[in-house]
Amino acid sequence: MIIVLNHATTEQIDSILLNISRSGLEPYYVDYFGKKMITAVGNSRACNADAYRSLPGVEAVIPISTKFKLVSREFKQEKSVVQVRDVEFGSMDKPVIAGPCAIEGYELFKEAAVAVKKAGAVMLRGGAYKPRTSPYSFQGLEEEGLSILLAVGKELDIPTVSEVTDPRNIELISQHVDMLQIGARNMQNFVLLKEVAKSSMPVLLKRGASATIEEWLMAAEYIVAGGNPNVVLCERGIRTFENYTRNTLDLSAVPVVQHLSHLPIIIDPSHGTGHWRFVTPMALAAMGAGADGLMVEVHTCPAEAVSDGPQSLTPARFQKLMQGLAAVNRAIM
Amino acid sequence: MIIVLNHATTEQIDSILLNISRSGLEPYYVDYFGKKMITAVGNSRACNADAYRSLPGVEAVIPISTKFKLVSREFKQEKSVVQVRDVEFGSMDKPVIAGPCAIEGYELFKEAAVAVKKAGAVMLRGGAYKPRTSPYSFQGLEEEGLSILLAVGKELDIPTVSEVTDPRNIELISQHVDMLQIGARNMQNFVLLKEVAKSSMPVLLKRGASATIEEWLMAAEYIVAGGNPNVVLCERGIRTFENYTRNTLDLSAVPVVQHLSHLPIIIDPSHGTGHWRFVTPMALAAMGAGADGLMVEVHTCPAEAVSDGPQSLTPARFQKLMQGLAAVNRAIM
Amino acid sequence: MIIVLNHATTEQIDSILLNISRSGLEPYYVDYFGKKMITAVGNSRACNADAYRSLPGVEAVIPISTKFKLVSREFKQEKSVVQVRDVEFGSMDKPVIAGPCAIEGYELFKEAAVAVKKAGAVMLRGGAYKPRTSPYSFQGLEEEGLSILLAVGKELDIPTVSEVTDPRNIELISQHVDMLQIGARNMQNFVLLKEVAKSSMPVLLKRGASATIEEWLMAAEYIVAGGNPNVVLCERGIRTFENYTRNTLDLSAVPVVQHLSHLPIIIDPSHGTGHWRFVTPMALAAMGAGADGLMVEVHTCPAEAVSDGPQSLTPARFQKLMQGLAAVNRAIM
Amino acid sequence: MIIVLNHATTEQIDSILLNISRSGLEPYYVDYFGKKMITAVGNSRACNADAYRSLPGVEAVIPISTKFKLVSREFKQEKSVVQVRDVEFGSMDKPVIAGPCAIEGYELFKEAAVAVKKAGAVMLRGGAYKPRTSPYSFQGLEEEGLSILLAVGKELDIPTVSEVTDPRNIELISQHVDMLQIGARNMQNFVLLKEVAKSSMPVLLKRGASATIEEWLMAAEYIVAGGNPNVVLCERGIRTFENYTRNTLDLSAVPVVQHLSHLPIIIDPSHGTGHWRFVTPMALAAMGAGADGLMVEVHTCPAEAVSDGPQSLTPARFQKLMQGLAAVNRAIM
Repeated sequence: MIIVLNHATTEQIDSILLNISRSGLEPYYVDYFGKKMITAVGNSRACNADAYRSLPGVEAVIPISTKFKLVSREFKQEKSVVQVRDVEFGSMDKPVIAGPCAIEGYELFKEAAVAVKKAGAVMLRGGAYKPRTSPYSFQGLEEEGLSILLAVGKELDIPTVSEVTDPRNIELISQHVDMLQIGARNMQNFVLLKEVAKSSMPVLLKRGASATIEEWLMAAEYIVAGGNPNVVLCERGIRTFENYTRNTLDLSAVPVVQHLSHLPIIIDPSHGTGHWRFVTPMALAAMGAGADGLMVEVHTCPAEAVSDGPQSLTPARFQKLMQGLAAVNRAIM
Repeated sequence: MIIVLNHATTEQIDSILLNISRSGLEPYYVDYFGKKMITAVGNSRACNADAYRSLPGVEAVIPISTKFKLVSREFKQEKSVVQVRDVEFGSMDKPVIAGPCAIEGYELFKEAAVAVKKAGAVMLRGGAYKPRTSPYSFQGLEEEGLSILLAVGKELDIPTVSEVTDPRNIELISQHVDMLQIGARNMQNFVLLKEVAKSSMPVLLKRGASATIEEWLMAAEYIVAGGNPNVVLCERGIRTFENYTRNTLDLSAVPVVQHLSHLPIIIDPSHGTGHWRFVTPMALAAMGAGADGLMVEVHTCPAEAVSDGPQSLTPARFQKLMQGLAAVNRAIM
Repeated sequence: MIIVLNHATTEQIDSILLNISRSGLEPYYVDYFGKKMITAVGNSRACNADAYRSLPGVEAVIPISTKFKLVSREFKQEKSVVQVRDVEFGSMDKPVIAGPCAIEGYELFKEAAVAVKKAGAVMLRGGAYKPRTSPYSFQGLEEEGLSILLAVGKELDIPTVSEVTDPRNIELISQHVDMLQIGARNMQNFVLLKEVAKSSMPVLLKRGASATIEEWLMAAEYIVAGGNPNVVLCERGIRTFENYTRNTLDLSAVPVVQHLSHLPIIIDPSHGTGHWRFVTPMALAAMGAGADGLMVEVHTCPAEAVSDGPQSLTPARFQKLMQGLAAVNRAIM
Repeated sequence: MIIVLNHATTEQIDSILLNISRSGLEPYYVDYFGKKMITAVGNSRACNADAYRSLPGVEAVIPISTKFKLVSREFKQEKSVVQVRDVEFGSMDKPVIAGPCAIEGYELFKEAAVAVKKAGAVMLRGGAYKPRTSPYSFQGLEEEGLSILLAVGKELDIPTVSEVTDPRNIELISQHVDMLQIGARNMQNFVLLKEVAKSSMPVLLKRGASATIEEWLMAAEYIVAGGNPNVVLCERGIRTFENYTRNTLDLSAVPVVQHLSHLPIIIDPSHGTGHWRFVTPMALAAMGAGADGLMVEVHTCPAEAVSDGPQSLTPARFQKLMQGLAAVNRAIM
């Protein structure tokens, strides 16, 4: 249930919040791009929508069944622009995020960061907490990695994004980066989604490898309904029977999401293909499909990367990609 | 890396643990069904196996590449039996866990519990924290649900299992139940896996809807390598193109897992099919395939269940299923 | 459109057939388990159902949208029994078909045939025309293979089944075997389906590796609507992301098909798993699920088979399987 | 086995062909873009490669295991250009094929043909034999459709392509069109592949909805090894769990195929998405990925199409797409 407010006073709002709590649901006060509302998360059967409809300060009560609502185009027709410092997702800027999969040390990371910024990347990525299939794989530098990311970001004056995997770390990570990433494996980690929803940080929400587009938008709805409207979606490949590529990059998600939702969507062709050789054509394809940006893995020495080396571009290849992107971007405008 | 110990003293063990920590890996002391060992979790490149091989108290050092090791048949040939109070998974007992998807209230839950116990179920299931695709769906009674589960379990003297979704709740839930469940959506929530690994509670690890058997065993390896050998695997259907059933129950996982691993594997035909009508034949099929047990959803009034009603058996149908199971079980012995 | 007849005369029938032909559809006269009817295959928009409803000899006209009709339970509630000489599919007999994947020569085939018959198989399989992924793989002995199959079938007095891949070969193959098999790759080879529909031979229709159950029943509908009601369905595994097994055997197809259709359904655990080690447990599971029979690959020397050796049972393993099947069968009665 | 010839005489060639036949394999004489060779299709174990190596006129004998060979980049490094009259697939031309899914009548088809030609399409598509999931769906105008296609193609002086589904119809269809299409459902109809291999017609080989790229290239190998090198591949979407789109268009097939093979690859965004709304962005994406051309469904009145209306562009939308394509094409050159 969503209660849209109309010049409600603080007392009126508090009273509604209290009533929702008492009925066993979780109430959230949301300032959704200027529109004030209260969302009631939980079992919708437990609450009587009519009881709220006639309250002072209430404009409308929108019953919700099972699908996404706040993130839908029906709810908000104009496309959303999510701002990360001076970087805009959802505008004509089409920003490119780049950097190595994992932060392996200050020198190596700085080197990659300088290279990608020079080539035109406007945001820096680097993993400090790595969710790895095997317990015997490198799990990230953790706090040390965050410090390196913060330092390099400041030195180069470039915004940063890094993955959060533990609800207990959100505050810590938020102090070091400009945008929180929810990885594919955690797309339906609802505990984590609810926790980043309480944060005001922009969130990059990757699609789960076997999530439908509808489930993905529902995961975004968790964050938005919980109070944080700053969500950027990121397609990174789905799991199919085809094994020549690491995943099957579902580029049709770009026009589909843009049809169903007002949220920006970017593409990660590195995880999406798993081979550097296919990253550039798929990045150009993503731009052709109308994606709102890209996230690309770049490593100064892919052969020695501790994680995802085979899918990382060298700085030289990344620079060439950036030139191609600009051309395609002009073509489809 | 796994360091197998041989009459190592406390000082020797502490020294090894310290050395591993210093090299940037996470050391765990594991008593693995009587065999003492230390596992080093993290980037295996970072450590020099030879340096440990010659230490006093060390019998062998086993380098690990990327695959599962401790959970493999190669490592331990005889089948493991995981004990939850007096219930044995992995023996000829083939226990059946039953109960409603979610705990909705004391009366309703007690009623279902009495019915399933009478029909022969030896363990009780009931969700208090429900991971739901939509933020607007019922999210579980949470602490109140746990209290109900604890109370009913005691009254009927039957062990219980419930899902854990938040690493911060493990202690709380452990005080209320006999076994922790990791749900399909959290199979690769490595933060959660590492946390239950620190616990001594038996763990029911569901297969992710798009996880390969290898990835599933790697998730089990996280728990075992982290110090908790009491893992029972549960197949609950994988995501395919076939939509007539909610998921495609992959029964071949039974012989495959039993070939690759010594861990017990049980089957959840309720989530695996999504329709009560198909639960009984698939439960009998699971027993035919040699599964080590079952988990079945039973609700006294499926039409009114707040969650997963369509796939729940009535007590009467469950009773009939139990009779069929006993017959098939005798047949394949 | 299906026109159900009621004591229609030959003239009345001919007149209806002619009218349908003129309207651009293909008419078929079908004696469907005793019920006489005419089916009109093609664009249903092109014909006016009402024009037929009032004709003498017409009991009812059933408009068809896009789904299966004749093969549905709604259309025919009692389960169909398909007879291949004295073998019954769909009764309590639960026949087992066995034999090598491909016929490689008289001696080898006879040897396998003797072994499987002795163990209890009531029907013999053997491929003479092999659809192979690579043009450089063995393509079958073709006519020579058919002759061997005919000879061995006669010598042992056991019915036989073999795959048909070419509409031009149906007559030839029908002269050598008792049942025609449509392989998974040809499940939507509609030219072939329409051709076997014209035949009176029993047909074993395998499910395509990526076919939904609905599409499979539609393929069966092609055969039945074309005049041949003797269809047995065979599940042999679907293509998923899981690669440990060759395919993912979808045993839930057994209760689903039995719910939706009156046609018998059998299981092929050999192609379904791709490893002999998993064939026996999955065969027992199939029986537990209520399958109407099995098709199992048996080779006297699997290591030297030119096709599908790894998934073939030895005669000794097959014999043991047959004993297990009998026990499970008794259990679920 | 492939026998590469070197100035072999007719007698030498005939002798080799005869020897191969006698050993139970099918020999084909192939003029493969100027290189003369004989391919031996069938069980490679049955033949002794060494026996051929020393024969006069033989340059080399290439043993083949199970993978594709003639269609691989290793075998032929320069990209192949397949010519259909004056249309080139594989060159910088990047031709667009357009037209309605099915031919429904002369007037309607002519209208669409005029529109797509005017907008820049260089080749005309139209189905006369339609493989349909349901026997009750429109199956195509068959011979009448072919006549319309031939007439309109001549009137507008534009090459045509149409699907072949029956090995008995290849000659007939070849007399009416300029290129034969093998549909997705027939990609592994090996009887059909061998039959078009004997033809000299260019072949458009669609990828099966659940075929791996390797299997697809093996299907192409059937045609090339059988004597017909004029194969153009067409990706049209694979079957996954995502149901918002009809199929998941696997655009990564473009760079992957271009890496593995020298054959041209084009994209069908109409079947690939199933909704006209997503056709244009995915067509632009395909061009960005470097596809060698496109095949697009256009209908003058999609709402009334008997087949695939929802995924057909109107002529106006198609014209706009063609402008966008030209711009992207210039950008990536």
